[in-house]
Amino acid sequence: MGALIEPLARLINELSKLPGIGSRTAARLAYHILGRDESEVRELARAIWQAHKNIRICPVCQAFTDVTPCAMCSDERRDRSVLCVVSGPRDVEAMERTREFRGLYHVLHGVISPGDNKGPEDIRIRELLERLRDGAVREVILATNPDLEGEATAMYIAQLVRPLGIRVTRIAHGLPVGSDLEYADEVTLGRALAGRREM
Amino acid sequence: MGALIEPLARLINELSKLPGIGSRTAARLAYHILGRDESEVRELARAIWQAHKNIRICPVCQAFTDVTPCAMCSDERRDRSVLCVVSGPRDVEAMERTREFRGLYHVLHGVISPGDNKGPEDIRIRELLERLRDGAVREVILATNPDLEGEATAMYIAQLVRPLGIRVTRIAHGLPVGSDLEYADEVTLGRALAGRREM
Repeated sequence: MGALIEPLARLINELSKLPGIGSRTAARLAYHILGRDESEVRELARAIWQAHKNIRICPVCQAFTDVTPCAMCSDERRDRSVLCVVSGPRDVEAMERTREFRGLYHVLHGVISPGDNKGPEDIRIRELLERLRDGAVREVILATNPDLEGEATAMYIAQLVRPLGIRVTRIAHGLPVGSDLEYADEVTLGRALAGRREM
Repeated sequence: MGALIEPLARLINELSKLPGIGSRTAARLAYHILGRDESEVRELARAIWQAHKNIRICPVCQAFTDVTPCAMCSDERRDRSVLCVVSGPRDVEAMERTREFRGLYHVLHGVISPGDNKGPEDIRIRELLERLRDGAVREVILATNPDLEGEATAMYIAQLVRPLGIRVTRIAHGLPVGSDLEYADEVTLGRALAGRREM
């Protein structure tokens, strides 16, 4: 043999294009797929194809959706005066898990990152400003990641939104709940100290 | 939202059925798939489906193949007098990478494992004995894993093959090349000592 049989080699190659899937994992998955029942494999292939085909980006909040506008944007019970800005669609899920936020979202689909050649015009900032034009939003919460690019993006957006007379806030930096002060890095600890609140 | 949109939830569910893919990894992969181009996603779904559809089990050696018999079984340059018995199709690949073996293979598709309710009749031992009937094979190398079940399976097969007047060998146990004697477990080290060879 030496060379793998072609359909298997192609499957391994396709699987190894997925993030975090190296060639060894891809091979393990491929062999597993070969050993599964036809119906199970059909379901997997269909789920991939159907998800990609049926899910589009909500023209309002830019999150993934299968209806237009998305279920959240058309949910009358949500607070239309607060907008939470996140960098990716998965962050919406993370925020929703907190059950603390009842406003609407705006997904940027990336952050400003000169290293990756990504400028403000490459993420959905224009769409955000468009949404703010009718004056319904009174607070924009910037919930990009607390890393260099997330901070830069938040700062950039804050400068554009503040002149509109809209309150701009940033999620707090501090110690993760359940973590150990002794092992906290000094930057996080410094932020936690600076952000201290009255008890 | 709370609940995920259905096509996305289904994709995550299907992906998380794959071995070693937990729900978090499945979600990461699913969101990645949504963000990819249509043609790339079509290729992935097709590769999965086509591989499963076009690859069957070689009726001779029981390895995966897209032709019958498989390319290796019909390769005239390979030594038909030596048969290497492995537990899974991936082991064939591993053996081939050594470039040390020029005989043919026999894939058992499992090992005898009473804990998993797998007996000798559940793996391809019958097909192995069938292959040995014409007297062409002079040596059977048992290359099942060096674990409890692999050893038991090797011993079981050895007992069946030896009476046929065929030489039965087992791959050597010992220290992995490049490993550290200091950190070797005592069983491996014991085997390495017992299997020592003249220099």
